[in-house]
Amino acid sequence: MAWKRLIPTLNRVLVEKIVPPSKTNAGILLPESSTKLNSGKVVAVGPGSRDRSGNVIPVSVKEGETVLLPEYGGTQVKLGDKEFFLYRDEDILGTLHDK
Amino acid sequence: MAWKRLIPTLNRVLVEKIVPPSKTNAGILLPESSTKLNSGKVVAVGPGSRDRSGNVIPVSVKEGETVLLPEYGGTQVKLGDKEFFLYRDEDILGTLHDK
Amino acid sequence: MAWKRLIPTLNRVLVEKIVPPSKTNAGILLPESSTKLNSGKVVAVGPGSRDRSGNVIPVSVKEGETVLLPEYGGTQVKLGDKEFFLYRDEDILGTLHDK
Amino acid sequence: MAWKRLIPTLNRVLVEKIVPPSKTNAGILLPESSTKLNSGKVVAVGPGSRDRSGNVIPVSVKEGETVLLPEYGGTQVKLGDKEFFLYRDEDILGTLHDK
Amino acid sequence: MAWKRLIPTLNRVLVEKIVPPSKTNAGILLPESSTKLNSGKVVAVGPGSRDRSGNVIPVSVKEGETVLLPEYGGTQVKLGDKEFFLYRDEDILGTLHDK
Amino acid sequence: MAWKRLIPTLNRVLVEKIVPPSKTNAGILLPESSTKLNSGKVVAVGPGSRDRSGNVIPVSVKEGETVLLPEYGGTQVKLGDKEFFLYRDEDILGTLHDK
Amino acid sequence: MAWKRLIPTLNRVLVEKIVPPSKTNAGILLPESSTKLNSGKVVAVGPGSRDRSGNVIPVSVKEGETVLLPEYGGTQVKLGDKEFFLYRDEDILGTLHDK
Repeated sequence: MAWKRLIPTLNRVLVEKIVPPSKTNAGILLPESSTKLNSGKVVAVGPGSRDRSGNVIPVSVKEGETVLLPEYGGTQVKLGDKEFFLYRDEDILGTLHDK
Repeated sequence: MAWKRLIPTLNRVLVEKIVPPSKTNAGILLPESSTKLNSGKVVAVGPGSRDRSGNVIPVSVKEGETVLLPEYGGTQVKLGDKEFFLYRDEDILGTLHDK
Repeated sequence: MAWKRLIPTLNRVLVEKIVPPSKTNAGILLPESSTKLNSGKVVAVGPGSRDRSGNVIPVSVKEGETVLLPEYGGTQVKLGDKEFFLYRDEDILGTLHDK
Repeated sequence: MAWKRLIPTLNRVLVEKIVPPSKTNAGILLPESSTKLNSGKVVAVGPGSRDRSGNVIPVSVKEGETVLLPEYGGTQVKLGDKEFFLYRDEDILGTLHDK
Repeated sequence: MAWKRLIPTLNRVLVEKIVPPSKTNAGILLPESSTKLNSGKVVAVGPGSRDRSGNVIPVSVKEGETVLLPEYGGTQVKLGDKEFFLYRDEDILGTLHDK
Repeated sequence: MAWKRLIPTLNRVLVEKIVPPSKTNAGILLPESSTKLNSGKVVAVGPGSRDRSGNVIPVSVKEGETVLLPEYGGTQVKLGDKEFFLYRDEDILGTLHDK
Repeated sequence: MAWKRLIPTLNRVLVEKIVPPSKTNAGILLPESSTKLNSGKVVAVGPGSRDRSGNVIPVSVKEGETVLLPEYGGTQVKLGDKEFFLYRDEDILGTLHDK
């Protein structure tokens, strides 16, 4: 049975990594530094976790956003032939924007 | 005395692991990657645990759901000739869905 | 002075271990796996512990119940010639039922 | 100056250990197991400690009670030629009763 | 895709380090000590983090302020050809002022 | 400048140790055990510390009381030619009384 | 740019250490013990930190006070040619007074 969808629990975030192209469309090699940003697209988020007083704290990033990921961590998850990574909300460093 | 049923305490979750078939029905060997998903079916859940203010926090997964399990952890429990695993609710990574 | 009774403090649970028979009544050797369940009968429970807001959290298992015990832990207590074990409530894995 | 009395602070408990007789009154050697119970009499208790919300949590054992002590821990205190031990309330395992 | 902007999550602070000149405008070598202040300009701040009771605690420094940074720590982030560092609010030592 | 007085911060307690005489007034050597009590007189106490809900928890011992000190710990403080020790309130074991 | 002022964040305290003279005004060598008090003057304090319920806990020492410092810890900060040290409020041992 190949599962189609994973709904993360608590404040986990499912991310599909963005593999930066090492060359431009015209085939020119990109400087290694600009390709080293560890980022990905948010595919699914959990319902949030509870603080010590029982309030549900929603996940701080949304589906479709592009996020900056920490250098380490993340649990690898293979669904069919696609590869995803699970992070806890507090480990996501920020959201990336092109303007 | 072979015990028939285990009701987990607190926010523990009793899971029966799904052992993915290494071949399709037609006998064709499945790629190793697609068979490596560590998953299982929820057989029983505890009443939930209490947060620091005394509120009972129910378990976030339900009986009958298929869940994604962490690579490590889980306490093995043999009931009769069946093998189960006990996890804490916060260690379950997510619920798996086929659409 | 041989003490007759121990009332556990806080959320401690006094358990008398069930030593599974290695043979059936008819003398047939039982498979080692079915005899490896680490279980016991609850003999006495403490009054419960307090959460951080001062609420008393009662012990989650009751006298007379059969409980599944963790592989490790438990404080040995000898009362007269009987041997018991003390566990904290949160270390008890679940309650065992025959139907 | 030989101090006569120690009032423990917070939730500390002052205990005078019971050294079990190795022989019965009739001089018969007692089995080593029955003499190994680490117990003592409560001599004084502190006013209790505060939980995180400021409530005072009284000590759970009382003066005069006989208590089961953990194998390790306890601070030795000599008052005059008497030897006592100080424990924290949460380390006392239970109260012993002869019926 | 070269990302233009990073919005930090929770109470993270994005800082662009100030590289102190080793010489004065007139080309005179500055004493090494005066150039060792590890400081930077706040470029962006997160929405703040939640305390245990669910209140949002805003970040304590503002965009445009110059801050004193700890000797260690900080996550390096390259956006295009610019280099930034991410800190947690509680690791920022203070704000620097010229009068 | 020889400082005359130290007001401890938070729930710190300033103690002047009592060095027990090794001989009675009549010059008779005291048994080593009776002289080993690590005790001292409370010279000053701090305003108290705050619990997690912001309540001020006053120090549990008072100026002038004689206290039983732990075997280890305590910060040495020399004021002029006098030697004192600073302890946290929770490390003081109890108060000593002669009746 | 030589910064003139540092406003500490949270409950940090900026201190200028007092270097005790090794000789009296008349040039007589002071006993080493009396010169070993690790103390300093409070130059600036942060706005305070928050407890777990969100209340702001002000810093317990004030600008201008002379404080007793712990033997270890403190972050060195050079502003121009002056040397300061940053401490957390809870690490300051007490305030020193000459009467």
